[in-house]
Amino acid sequence: MERNVLLTIAYDGYGFSGWQRQNTQRTVQGEIEKGLSKLCNMPIEINGTSRTDAGVHAFGQCASFSGDFGIPIENIPRALNNILASECKAYSTVGDVKIVSAREVPMDFHARFNCKGKTYRYVFRLGEPDVFRKNYAYQINEEINFVKMQEAAKQIVGTHDFACFQAAGGTPRKTTVRTVHDLTLKKQDNEIIMEITGDGFLYNMVRIIAGTLLDVGRGRIEASGISSIIESKDRQKAGHTAPACGLYLVEIYFDRDFE
Amino acid sequence: MERNVLLTIAYDGYGFSGWQRQNTQRTVQGEIEKGLSKLCNMPIEINGTSRTDAGVHAFGQCASFSGDFGIPIENIPRALNNILASECKAYSTVGDVKIVSAREVPMDFHARFNCKGKTYRYVFRLGEPDVFRKNYAYQINEEINFVKMQEAAKQIVGTHDFACFQAAGGTPRKTTVRTVHDLTLKKQDNEIIMEITGDGFLYNMVRIIAGTLLDVGRGRIEASGISSIIESKDRQKAGHTAPACGLYLVEIYFDRDFE
Repeated sequence: MERNVLLTIAYDGYGFSGWQRQNTQRTVQGEIEKGLSKLCNMPIEINGTSRTDAGVHAFGQCASFSGDFGIPIENIPRALNNILASECKAYSTVGDVKIVSAREVPMDFHARFNCKGKTYRYVFRLGEPDVFRKNYAYQINEEINFVKMQEAAKQIVGTHDFACFQAAGGTPRKTTVRTVHDLTLKKQDNEIIMEITGDGFLYNMVRIIAGTLLDVGRGRIEASGISSIIESKDRQKAGHTAPACGLYLVEIYFDRDFE
Repeated sequence: MERNVLLTIAYDGYGFSGWQRQNTQRTVQGEIEKGLSKLCNMPIEINGTSRTDAGVHAFGQCASFSGDFGIPIENIPRALNNILASECKAYSTVGDVKIVSAREVPMDFHARFNCKGKTYRYVFRLGEPDVFRKNYAYQINEEINFVKMQEAAKQIVGTHDFACFQAAGGTPRKTTVRTVHDLTLKKQDNEIIMEITGDGFLYNMVRIIAGTLLDVGRGRIEASGISSIIESKDRQKAGHTAPACGLYLVEIYFDRDFE
């Protein structure tokens, strides 16, 4: 009998050329599909909620797939994690991609179309550079005005046309209006952690917001000027795109019907 | 005028095929020599204190080199770190290898021959596997008796013939007698941290000690039997070799004359 399954997935993005399947590069989607196809003994394609870029990490990416396969759904995480760990030559039972959970969902559920919101985290590292954080945070070597970054962040919350924070090259969208429900910044040891929740994000939007807030923190953009940058809808007026290594997909929210 | 320089070096071992220069593989020694030769405008060879294996990390590796070069020694860390960061396509100013400090030493100083001791750390991770710790700790999925590991560790401290903890394949040594000055184990969050200080270590000795203590912790070797394993001088009686990813070279000590 055909079943539809929703996976929650964590990965260290360093070893992957992003989420989306490619012919010659190692990708998260590609590795999971290879493992699942072996496990289910049939070709499996998965639909991921977010097509994260190369180097972007995830605690809670989601993907759905369906098929008429034999394995009980509750056994999928453990069995698939063993395959994923051995394929990336890890010791013990962890690879650089891990199935956190698997659950059955209605047949008409789709991990991308039924997504109603996401939370991303962006990590800036201050102070002495650390070789062990190179791929996991954006190293900042200048003085930062944290209060100004917070002042700027407040202006981003709400429903706006965010064309100024959209990079060229993404999938064309019907509208560039999005709602940012929440955007917080906190200092923790040597790091500044930005968390942003919204109903959806344009191509590179979180990285451009992170870069813009950093540019405010180091005095290149006026904190009070963020609202008018948004109004301008002009990508040139916003800040730089912060690198992928600092970005983490934290959580995905779905329509209430499927919760 | 010819000068002799001692470097202290940190690296994330994941992206390297170990310390020692090789023709086709990326190694820590190879990357530093390439960068230094560029910086000094002359071919530079460095002598590392420890030839760490592929995947082993370092906070305080040391290496010395000499030459008649122009750059002031105090400028070497910053200039070399910029080269090393750009070569590994890092953002900002940190790569996966970093010069922590550089200082002038007498011409007859040699980072290997004048070493009088080293501290290594080994990290075990307990509980739920974490994709972000895959390359930085040894994931353990069994129940561990920590008190027994501590009981076993005590028997290793002191001056012994440690032939039982030596892997085949290393550089031949005159003697397999070494002194372990200190060996501690502590629990910290989800991890067990082993720290070991000695006057020198045989090939893979720290990893075999880590594996043996783990085998005690999971009941495969008797805690009280470590002394007789050491006396047997038999590698077969000791435990398995713990993987490289959990090992960190913490600090190196030199003869008092050069401190």
